[in-house]
Amino acid sequence: MFGAHTPEILMADLQQPESPRSASAEQGPAAVFLTHAEAKALRAQAEADSLIGRSIRAERAQVDAWMRTPVSVPGSGPGGGVEHEQHKRNYLMIFAAGRQYLIWQQPGYAKRIADVLSVYAERYTALPFAKPYSHNPPGRLFHQILNEHMWLLFAAAGYSCVRQELPEALRQRIDEGVFAPMVGMFTQTYRHHFDIIHNHGMWACAAVGVAGIACERRDWLELAVRGQFGDSETAGFLAQLANLFSPSGYYEEGPYYQRFAIQPMLLFAEAIERAWPELGIYRHHDEVVRRGFYAAFLPSFPNGALVPLNDAIKPMNIKSLGFVLGASFMYRRHEADARLLWLANLHGQVWPDAAGLALSDAIAKASPDALHCELPSVELLCGPKGDKGAVGILRAEGRHHEQAVLTFDAGSHGLAEHAHFDALTLGYFARGHEVLRDYGCVRWINIEPKGGGAYLPENVSWAKQTIAHNTVSVDGGCQHRADAELAVANPSHRLAFHGSGDAQWMRGETVGAYPGVAMRRTVALLRHADFEHPLLVDLFAIEADADHTYDYALYYDGQVVRTDFDYTPARNLSPLGTDAGYQHLWRVAAADLPAGRGLFSWLQKSCYHSLCFATSGPSEFIFTRIGANDPKFNLRAEPGLLLRQNGRDVVFASVLETHGDFDESREFSQGARGRLLALEIEDGGKRLRLHGSDADWLVELSDSVSIHRV
Amino acid sequence: MFGAHTPEILMADLQQPESPRSASAEQGPAAVFLTHAEAKALRAQAEADSLIGRSIRAERAQVDAWMRTPVSVPGSGPGGGVEHEQHKRNYLMIFAAGRQYLIWQQPGYAKRIADVLSVYAERYTALPFAKPYSHNPPGRLFHQILNEHMWLLFAAAGYSCVRQELPEALRQRIDEGVFAPMVGMFTQTYRHHFDIIHNHGMWACAAVGVAGIACERRDWLELAVRGQFGDSETAGFLAQLANLFSPSGYYEEGPYYQRFAIQPMLLFAEAIERAWPELGIYRHHDEVVRRGFYAAFLPSFPNGALVPLNDAIKPMNIKSLGFVLGASFMYRRHEADARLLWLANLHGQVWPDAAGLALSDAIAKASPDALHCELPSVELLCGPKGDKGAVGILRAEGRHHEQAVLTFDAGSHGLAEHAHFDALTLGYFARGHEVLRDYGCVRWINIEPKGGGAYLPENVSWAKQTIAHNTVSVDGGCQHRADAELAVANPSHRLAFHGSGDAQWMRGETVGAYPGVAMRRTVALLRHADFEHPLLVDLFAIEADADHTYDYALYYDGQVVRTDFDYTPARNLSPLGTDAGYQHLWRVAAADLPAGRGLFSWLQKSCYHSLCFATSGPSEFIFTRIGANDPKFNLRAEPGLLLRQNGRDVVFASVLETHGDFDESREFSQGARGRLLALEIEDGGKRLRLHGSDADWLVELSDSVSIHRV
Repeated sequence: MFGAHTPEILMADLQQPESPRSASAEQGPAAVFLTHAEAKALRAQAEADSLIGRSIRAERAQVDAWMRTPVSVPGSGPGGGVEHEQHKRNYLMIFAAGRQYLIWQQPGYAKRIADVLSVYAERYTALPFAKPYSHNPPGRLFHQILNEHMWLLFAAAGYSCVRQELPEALRQRIDEGVFAPMVGMFTQTYRHHFDIIHNHGMWACAAVGVAGIACERRDWLELAVRGQFGDSETAGFLAQLANLFSPSGYYEEGPYYQRFAIQPMLLFAEAIERAWPELGIYRHHDEVVRRGFYAAFLPSFPNGALVPLNDAIKPMNIKSLGFVLGASFMYRRHEADARLLWLANLHGQVWPDAAGLALSDAIAKASPDALHCELPSVELLCGPKGDKGAVGILRAEGRHHEQAVLTFDAGSHGLAEHAHFDALTLGYFARGHEVLRDYGCVRWINIEPKGGGAYLPENVSWAKQTIAHNTVSVDGGCQHRADAELAVANPSHRLAFHGSGDAQWMRGETVGAYPGVAMRRTVALLRHADFEHPLLVDLFAIEADADHTYDYALYYDGQVVRTDFDYTPARNLSPLGTDAGYQHLWRVAAADLPAGRGLFSWLQKSCYHSLCFATSGPSEFIFTRIGANDPKFNLRAEPGLLLRQNGRDVVFASVLETHGDFDESREFSQGARGRLLALEIEDGGKRLRLHGSDADWLVELSDSVSIHRV
Repeated sequence: MFGAHTPEILMADLQQPESPRSASAEQGPAAVFLTHAEAKALRAQAEADSLIGRSIRAERAQVDAWMRTPVSVPGSGPGGGVEHEQHKRNYLMIFAAGRQYLIWQQPGYAKRIADVLSVYAERYTALPFAKPYSHNPPGRLFHQILNEHMWLLFAAAGYSCVRQELPEALRQRIDEGVFAPMVGMFTQTYRHHFDIIHNHGMWACAAVGVAGIACERRDWLELAVRGQFGDSETAGFLAQLANLFSPSGYYEEGPYYQRFAIQPMLLFAEAIERAWPELGIYRHHDEVVRRGFYAAFLPSFPNGALVPLNDAIKPMNIKSLGFVLGASFMYRRHEADARLLWLANLHGQVWPDAAGLALSDAIAKASPDALHCELPSVELLCGPKGDKGAVGILRAEGRHHEQAVLTFDAGSHGLAEHAHFDALTLGYFARGHEVLRDYGCVRWINIEPKGGGAYLPENVSWAKQTIAHNTVSVDGGCQHRADAELAVANPSHRLAFHGSGDAQWMRGETVGAYPGVAMRRTVALLRHADFEHPLLVDLFAIEADADHTYDYALYYDGQVVRTDFDYTPARNLSPLGTDAGYQHLWRVAAADLPAGRGLFSWLQKSCYHSLCFATSGPSEFIFTRIGANDPKFNLRAEPGLLLRQNGRDVVFASVLETHGDFDESREFSQGARGRLLALEIEDGGKRLRLHGSDADWLVELSDSVSIHRV
C-alpha cells in the first residue's frame, strides 16, 4: 500500500509557471489572516524601531534567504532528514512570504509562492506514500500526516495572500494538484484518523478549515468546524475545544503538547473569527480558546521551560510559536492583560499582523515594571468537567528573589498516547534548575539517525513507567499495570490546595493505581526566616490491604556530596529488575537503614541540596543510574535514588533543603552543609520534627500545614 | 606536634585597639603598592564612568560590606569551611581596605584594618597548628601554610597603607604579634619547605618579601629575593623565576597552576620594582615575568577556560586575579600590547592602582576592533632551557568564525606533585565546548564535606593515570610505571610544529614511557572547503620490541547517535581492570572489529561529532563510563571510548568531523550525519584515505601534512 522511500529533488527551473497576474494586491478579497487595510498599516510600521517593525523585518530576512535558494520540492524522508526539513522550510516560508507580499507589495514574493506550489501541484499525487514510523498514517511529503497537516495549514494561508491574483488556470492547477488531494487524503483516505480528539485532530481540523477559507471551499471549513459527523460534539474543531481542555484550561496531554496544540487552535480560531465571525469562536464554550492559551504558560519554570509532565522534550519553553501567536491574538481579541506584554517582551517579537501591531504599540508605551511578571501558584483542574483531579504548581521566593517551583500531579492520566503512569509525581525547580527531575520522553527529536526522531522503544519501557518518576512504585510494578484504559478510568483526587502565604501546600490521593493500595501525598513549600530558601516537604502515606514492597524514587542531577549513613557500593552493576522500567536502572550502591532515617546531600551546579528523610519502618536506600538495557544508547545516564520499604501501611517523609553557593571557576564554596541534620515522623505523619545543629523545627501536616521553630 | 582542630570565633568588641593616629595619610612613606601621588590620581577618577572608576567602586562596595560585619578572627578549619572562608575574606579585605583608605582618605578603613590585625596579633601565636590534610605543613589559620602565605602577602600589603599612622605601640604589637611570628614560622619552622621551586615557594617568597617591605624588614625582603642560601639560584624568588618557566614562558606545573603562580609573581615583582628598583626585576632573566604572564593565557579555549593539562579545576579561566593584575602591570611596566586591552575589556575591570588607571584610559580611547583578539596557534617549549619537548596549541576557524582548538602535550612531565602521566595526550575544543576532554583533577575544591576540598585519593588512582587521558596505554599500565622521577627524566620530544595556514599540525614522540616502546603521534587541524568545520586528524604510530596490548582512549561528552558497526552492550557492568586507573572504568559495551575500522557519532549540546577511525590490525571498540570503584562518589560519571589493538608495531588513525546543528528547544536538527563514511590507512600511515558518500579525500601525513579531494 505504501510506496517506497524515494526522495527526489525537483528544481523549479525545470518548470516555470505563469507569473502572477498583477503586481498589486490592493484590491481583491482578503487573505486568511490579513486584510489589505491591515497590510497597509503594517507597511507603515515596517521600518520602525519597534517590536512590530523588527518582527516584520526579521521574517522578511528569512523569506529573502529562502528566495535566494533554488526551488526544491523533494520526496519524503525521515524526521530531521534533508527532505523533511526542506518541506518544513517550504511551508513556513510560503506562509511568511504571503504576508510579506501583502505588506511590501513586491511581486517577487507572490511569484515565488506560485513557483513552489506549482511544483508541489505537479508532483504531489504522483509521490508515493512515505515510510511510516509509527501507528500514525504516513503522508506523501512526511512520514506522518501530522506534518502534512502542518504543511497544509501554513501553505494554504500563504497561498491565500496571492491566490486571487494568479491566472485562473494556474490557480486551478494548484487547487486541484495539491490542496484538494491533500484534503481528500486527510478527510477520506484517513477519515478514521481525521478529527479524533487529540492534538493531531486539532491540526487536521485547522488545516482543512484554513484550506477551505483559502480555496473558497466552504464545505471544507464546515467539515473542519463541525466534524465529520456534523454534530460539533464527537469530532471536529468545536469538539476538540470542548473535550481537550479542562475548566482551568489544562490540556489533557500535558504542557508540552498544550504548547503544540495551541498553535492550530489559535490560528484556526483567528481564521474563523475573520471568515465566519457569526460563529463567535472566541466566546465559544466559555472562552475556551482564551482559557487554553493562558493555562499553557502557567506550568512553566522561571527559566521558561515547560513543566515536563507526560511525554515532553524538556528544553521546550514558552518562547515557542504558539505563545508568540497567542500573545498577539489574545491582546487584540480579548483584553490588554499585563501577562501578554511580559510574554511579548520575553519573546522580543510580536506576531507580524494587525494583532501584533497593537501589542507592539502597547509595549512601546509600557513602563519597565509593566513588562515584568511573576507567575502565581495555581491549581489546574483536570478533565473536561474539572472533576478528574488537579495539577498543582506552587511558587515561593527564596534568597535574591529566586523563585522555587513545586509541581504535583494529582490529576487525570491524560490521553493514552502521550501519558505517563505517574500519579502523584512530584517535581521541584530551584536556584535556576530542575532539582527533582522528571525524565521527559525518550525521543531525540528530529535527529534522523536516532529512529528518525520518533519516540523510541524506551519511551514505553522506561519513560512511561512509574519507577521513572518521583513517586512510589509498588512491588516493582507500574501503576494500573501500564494499562492506559484502566488509568484513564481512575484519575487521582485532589484533596486540598493552598497556593498563597508562607506555607503553601497541596494534597492528593490515588486509590487503586495498585490493587488494594491507597496512596496519599502531601507536598508543601514552606518559607521560614531560618532558611535562605523555601523548604520542600513531602509526606507520602500509603494504606493497603496486604503487605507490599514500596519504592519511593527521586531523580536528581549533580554530584553526591555526603550521606550521614554508610552504604555499600556495588563492585559490578546489575539492573535493578527485569521489567516495568526497573530493567533500565543500574543498582550503584545501597544501604540498610534499620532506623529508617538519613541525610543525602548533593551539589547541582551553583548550590547544594540536602534531603533529610525518614520512613515509618526500616528501609533500604539505593543509589541508581539510568542506562541499563539500553542497547542503542537512547537514554540519558542520569542518577537517582530509591527508598525501599516493606510493610502494609507505611509513610515516607522527606524535607529538601537548598543551601549554599559554589562557583568552581572562582574556587568558591560556602554553606555546603545545610541547617537540617535529621527528620522524625511523629504521630503517623501528622507532624515532622526537624533537627538542626542549633535548633529544631516542627512541621504540622494535618488539616493545615505550617512550620515553626521549637 | 600539631594542635587539635579548635575553631573559635573572636569578636572584635572583646578588644578595642587604639585608633589610628591621624585621619590623613597624605604624608609619610608609601605603601607597598601605592604612593600618595598615585592614590590622589585614583581619587580623581574614582567616580568616573570608566573601567578604573567602576573597579575602584566595586572594590569599595566589597570593603564596605565587610565593614558592616563584626570583626571575626576564628581559629582554623577545613578548606571551604566557615573559618577558612573568614580568614580568606579578612586578608582580601585588609588588602582592599588599605587601598581604599589611601584613595578616599576615610579613617574608618584604617581603623578597621587596625582593629582586625590587633585581634590577629593578640591571638596568633596562641592558636594551635591546624589539622593538616596533606604533606603540606599546616598553619595556625589554615590547614596548609600555602593559604597562610596568601594571608601574609595580602594582609601585609593592606597593613602597609596604614602602618605609618598607627601609634608606635600598636604598630609594634601587630608587627611582633602576627607578622614576625608568621615569617618566622615560614622561614624557620618550615625552612625545608620555604622557598622550594614550586608554586608554594613562589607564594612563600612573595609573602615574606612583601611583609619585609611593609614592616621595614629589609632582611626579610632579601631573604625572599635571594633565597635561604643567598645564592639566588637554588632557592628564593629569583630562582623560582629562572627554574619554573621555559623560554616560551610555559610553567612546569601546567596552565592551572600557572594562573595561580602568576599572582605572587606579579605582585612581588611589582613590589620589588617599587621598593628596590635597582634590581630591575622586570628585566630580570630575559624578562621572565613578562614571558610568564603572556604564556599563561595562550593555553586557553575560546570560552576563556584554561587548557586542563595536569591537575586542573576545569572551569578555571583567564578572568581570574592573576590576569587582572597582569594586564594592568604589564601595560604600565612593558608596552601597550593589544592583548592587554582585550583582556581588561573581557574582565570588565582593571587593577585599582596606577597601572590600571593607565590601562583604563587606553581602553576608553580604543576602537572596538582594538578590544578584540584571536589568540594564535603557538608552540610552548618546556623545561627551563626549552629542551624538554613542547605543548602545542593549534587554532583554526570553522563556520561562523568559531575557533577550533587542538591541544597536544609532547612536553615535560612537570613538577611531580601536580603532573599527570599523559605524554602525547590530545585535547580538542570546538563549537564552544571541550570535545575530546581531559578529566582534570579529582578534587571538589573548597567543598568542605568532600575531603575539605583537598585532592582526593582518586586523583592518584584515576586522574594521574595514563588511561584517564586521550593517549595510548600499554598492557593496561601507566606510563613510567607511575613513577614521577622516571617521567621527569624522560620528557617527550617535539618533532615538528606548523602553526599557520589551512593545514596546521604537530608531531611528537615518546620513547621508553613504556619499556621498549616508541610512540609517535601526529595531530593536525585541517581546513578544507568541503567541510564546514576544520577536521581533526590523529595518527598514533607505535613501534616496539615485543607484542603488547595497546589501548587508545578518548573521552567525550554527550549522547551516542550511531555507529556503523554492531556492538554488544554489557548486561552487567564490570570494571575494565584492577589497577592503573582501569579499575575506575565501567565496561559498558564492546565490539570486535576484524577489519579494524568504524565510525562513531555523538551529539554534544548544539552539534554532532563523528569519529572515523582505523587500526592497522583487528581491534576491539569498548564503550566506557567513569565511576567504578568510587565509594565516595568523588568522580564524575563521564563516558569514553577505547580502541584496543594487540601486536608489536601498530597504528591508530582517526579523523574527527564536527557537523550539523541541534536545538532541542526548537526541535531543530540538521546535518546529523557528517560527510565522512570511512577511513583507510595507506602506506603504514603516511597517508589516510577518507571516504565520503559523494567524494574521497587524501590526507598526506609524512614530511608535511595536507588534505585534498580525489
